[in-house]
Amino acid sequence: MIDVQKRQDHRNLDINKVGVKGISYPIVVLDRQNEKQATVAAVNMYVDLPHRFKGTHMSRFIEVLNHFRGEMTIYKMPEILREMRRRLEAETAHLEVMFPYFIEKEAPVSGAKSLVEYQCFFSGAMDGQLDFILGVTVPVTSLCPCSKEISRYGAHNQRSHVTVKVRTQGFIWLEELIEVVEKSASCEVYALLKREDEKYVTEKAYENPVFVEDLVRNVAQVLRDDQRVTWFVVEAENFESIHNHSAYAFIEMDKQE
Amino acid sequence: MIDVQKRQDHRNLDINKVGVKGISYPIVVLDRQNEKQATVAAVNMYVDLPHRFKGTHMSRFIEVLNHFRGEMTIYKMPEILREMRRRLEAETAHLEVMFPYFIEKEAPVSGAKSLVEYQCFFSGAMDGQLDFILGVTVPVTSLCPCSKEISRYGAHNQRSHVTVKVRTQGFIWLEELIEVVEKSASCEVYALLKREDEKYVTEKAYENPVFVEDLVRNVAQVLRDDQRVTWFVVEAENFESIHNHSAYAFIEMDKQE
Amino acid sequence: MIDVQKRQDHRNLDINKVGVKGISYPIVVLDRQNEKQATVAAVNMYVDLPHRFKGTHMSRFIEVLNHFRGEMTIYKMPEILREMRRRLEAETAHLEVMFPYFIEKEAPVSGAKSLVEYQCFFSGAMDGQLDFILGVTVPVTSLCPCSKEISRYGAHNQRSHVTVKVRTQGFIWLEELIEVVEKSASCEVYALLKREDEKYVTEKAYENPVFVEDLVRNVAQVLRDDQRVTWFVVEAENFESIHNHSAYAFIEMDKQE
Amino acid sequence: MIDVQKRQDHRNLDINKVGVKGISYPIVVLDRQNEKQATVAAVNMYVDLPHRFKGTHMSRFIEVLNHFRGEMTIYKMPEILREMRRRLEAETAHLEVMFPYFIEKEAPVSGAKSLVEYQCFFSGAMDGQLDFILGVTVPVTSLCPCSKEISRYGAHNQRSHVTVKVRTQGFIWLEELIEVVEKSASCEVYALLKREDEKYVTEKAYENPVFVEDLVRNVAQVLRDDQRVTWFVVEAENFESIHNHSAYAFIEMDKQE
Repeated sequence: MIDVQKRQDHRNLDINKVGVKGISYPIVVLDRQNEKQATVAAVNMYVDLPHRFKGTHMSRFIEVLNHFRGEMTIYKMPEILREMRRRLEAETAHLEVMFPYFIEKEAPVSGAKSLVEYQCFFSGAMDGQLDFILGVTVPVTSLCPCSKEISRYGAHNQRSHVTVKVRTQGFIWLEELIEVVEKSASCEVYALLKREDEKYVTEKAYENPVFVEDLVRNVAQVLRDDQRVTWFVVEAENFESIHNHSAYAFIEMDKQE
Repeated sequence: MIDVQKRQDHRNLDINKVGVKGISYPIVVLDRQNEKQATVAAVNMYVDLPHRFKGTHMSRFIEVLNHFRGEMTIYKMPEILREMRRRLEAETAHLEVMFPYFIEKEAPVSGAKSLVEYQCFFSGAMDGQLDFILGVTVPVTSLCPCSKEISRYGAHNQRSHVTVKVRTQGFIWLEELIEVVEKSASCEVYALLKREDEKYVTEKAYENPVFVEDLVRNVAQVLRDDQRVTWFVVEAENFESIHNHSAYAFIEMDKQE
Repeated sequence: MIDVQKRQDHRNLDINKVGVKGISYPIVVLDRQNEKQATVAAVNMYVDLPHRFKGTHMSRFIEVLNHFRGEMTIYKMPEILREMRRRLEAETAHLEVMFPYFIEKEAPVSGAKSLVEYQCFFSGAMDGQLDFILGVTVPVTSLCPCSKEISRYGAHNQRSHVTVKVRTQGFIWLEELIEVVEKSASCEVYALLKREDEKYVTEKAYENPVFVEDLVRNVAQVLRDDQRVTWFVVEAENFESIHNHSAYAFIEMDKQE
Repeated sequence: MIDVQKRQDHRNLDINKVGVKGISYPIVVLDRQNEKQATVAAVNMYVDLPHRFKGTHMSRFIEVLNHFRGEMTIYKMPEILREMRRRLEAETAHLEVMFPYFIEKEAPVSGAKSLVEYQCFFSGAMDGQLDFILGVTVPVTSLCPCSKEISRYGAHNQRSHVTVKVRTQGFIWLEELIEVVEKSASCEVYALLKREDEKYVTEKAYENPVFVEDLVRNVAQVLRDDQRVTWFVVEAENFESIHNHSAYAFIEMDKQE
């Protein structure tokens, strides 16, 4: 059967990325507490395509994915990327994996246990070397310092999403990044709070007001001092309770510059 | 050219609704303050199809839509539905129109003006008679009565979305529904608040705590007593600041039952 | 500590549904091929609230959910709903569970294996009796009969989503519903197709053109004749390749009417 | 009243971007055919914040937005960004504006007129100089060359979204970018097609098969040769009719490197 994709192309245009996007796939990830966790990922896989080729072979991406089924841990990323380069005959391979990750947390007073979901992602690129980014979005509570200070009582507060992405030398647990964020907020969120816990988180948030600016700076301060982190971005979005839009802040730091 | 759709079908199955979905379309709606407002709608148009016909004629829906371009007001709904029935040779026609609608509001203390967006919709069905539903989703602030009462200071609060849908005898402005909802909440939201306004809304929300149950009951109480309203649903979703999930409540009332 | 929720309410308004919405939760579901499958669900849990009570107790929903962690199969639905009624002291309980479900399929010619994702859901309501709805959205290929017939060559085709919901007497596998839909389309979709498979699905779709009307009728025809099914809805949405909107059809049938 | 935001911060961390996100706002944009077009935008506005300040003043962003209400054309971008820098006392200002834009198109044979929607965006950043990016996502039809060549009849085709972003020296109409994309595809899409048009677009797509790689290369070829364009990215996503995931390609070219 004819291989249309292998034909010559004459437009003299390299393609930076070509591949498959938005594949839903069950995966297993490393879990600090329980070793392994089954979850469902959205996966994107791309390679570069030199100008002389008309097309890539899309089915091979899925074959690589299937080959590593049930082993999509952080440790496997280099091997998967190498396999993508080999099978697709490409210089550069890109793999993006986004997935919900669950951690069991204890309510602060009652100790009642429940699961909190964090949206995580791996992003790996490999030409000769591996470029790996680990990321997570953490839901937290933020309480406005200005509102607290100028008001006779109360203070507006809201759910915020803080996203951290890091490049590292040496291993970092998702759980570590999550802890950094949760400590940087007015209070962390839980799925299950009994009345005594609700009192606790209400008062704690009131005692720890943070602007959206503080959220990103508090996180950035810790990551700046963590020797394992060579680059990071942190962004925070506050779904303001007094507006119908968000407050937003973003810091990027490349320590090797 | 052959008309495949007009052919006979032998499966003996009426189709309740068939048509076009997710059409983006610029429309003009009635505005209590400024007479008219230009906005962009998502439009769905369906008719029924008797069992003996193989298919409907999709292009005619778009022709009807184009015919009424620039006149998609609430008053035109019966005419559009009649035209759909006529052009599609159908018993029943359905038209759903969802659109953002903007109202200029003044901040409560400074009087600073800004636009607040409300997601609105019209839903009309016509066989012999018109069945028309008017709806709107209103963003508000809700502050938890329990959190306030049990805590030494502060109270968790958050953005909530309250959705109201009504069937009426006689005309009701979208603005009226919006006002009912905004008065039912801990506080309304604004796009622009100066510091003195922020103090005001913080304190007002603290003085008016509402559960998600109160949100829907406060709205339902007003609509129950409004003689123009013959049926309504009201639902509220609180994007809890202390959880990563929502609290939700829903009331439906048919006064003619 | 004060129980604010338990207080009397005087607005004389029953609430149809109140509870928690949008909880992300890891679950295990029954799998015809492999017995069990781990996935991640979005969960909604509601009860009714009589007019005399001010509020429900949101944390108890999560406690019920946690109690059944790792056992959220279709068989457990009645037990979970009964526990919701008991713990929340409610007449009616509602549980909605939506989740991606994966089935390994073999490509039609090469036999290459890959996973296809289906969005599934359970919806249970219980007052005295259980009302249970099983549903699934199936991606398929649809090819337009009109386009094929009037054109000298080719025919526009596209991805379609067909959603089926059923009430049954007796057990039905999700896999059975999925098969009904896949046989009703121009062709089923796969995650992995080699060139010989691509030839096969292209030709098969061309040989089996269906309108969006045919999609829902083909499915309805089978469900109408399946004695286990007492009620169903089937809807199809074609993401038209020649438009930027969808074609849509919908059939509902209650056999007990 | 105290200005909490103006206080000193001691963490020694500059913030790259801080501001407001996700504001829905009615705007007027330039229209090649009709001079002006009313639409509804999603707006993000950010500035940098030097390390010594605790917070920015969020309300001022909205004041700037209100000041330019009804004049959000491409020509106004520099003035708005300058005003943001001035009012927020910032070095750098960022403004992102995304909006649906409608063009009336004539069906290729019948000449029937209808509106097609394009998702457009402006993105402007200013420190001393203006950095302006114009972008648009264009829905088109793509038909697979491999499927066509290996099959006895038919060829799978689907809706694709092609996104172009350009930096330019000199003015470019959105309409020009849209035309470049539509000519690069198997066929353009329309909202309204009569039977004779459906025959035309079916046959035209069959005569012009393109891979996702061809889509981006065809566009890149034109933009590479357009002297006004100094930088561009083009990406294409095919919502494959034979899979439940997308094929994707991406090219970036900076002519000044």
